[in-house]
Amino acid sequence: MNYRAEIDVMPLKALLDPQGKAVTGSMKNLGLPEIQNVRIGKHITLEIEASTKEMANSKVDEACKKLLANQIMESYVFELFEI
Amino acid sequence: MNYRAEIDVMPLKALLDPQGKAVTGSMKNLGLPEIQNVRIGKHITLEIEASTKEMANSKVDEACKKLLANQIMESYVFELFEI
Repeated sequence: MNYRAEIDVMPLKALLDPQGKAVTGSMKNLGLPEIQNVRIGKHITLEIEASTKEMANSKVDEACKKLLANQIMESYVFELFEI
Repeated sequence: MNYRAEIDVMPLKALLDPQGKAVTGSMKNLGLPEIQNVRIGKHITLEIEASTKEMANSKVDEACKKLLANQIMESYVFELFEI
């Protein structure tokens, strides 16, 4: 079976997000002061072949831990969809 | 009312995504050859104050068009949640 994974990797809430801070400031300059607290992370999509959804889940989790997210600074969540 | 927007900005399907390509190659080296077609974009969260959900929707769309996404190379989708 083939699955599509949609992964969000975000900076941990406890940490500063300088890119997000800069964009929050720019919103004000653009005439959108009602936008606050912008945080910027990564959105990753991938395709995976696995015999079961559980297997796909564990492989994607491994990929996140080993390569896609730096768990010292980032948290990740993902969803799997059959394709 | 306050809303939280969850925005995904992804490179257009028609375009190369060199970062995604590099990560797809690394998956193989990490012992995860079943992972293919990795694409990497941005995930952005923000908070917005607006009188109605329609108003919030139009402001977030404006923010995406003006600042968050480069529509020549990227597409975006977002969802709004009341907070």
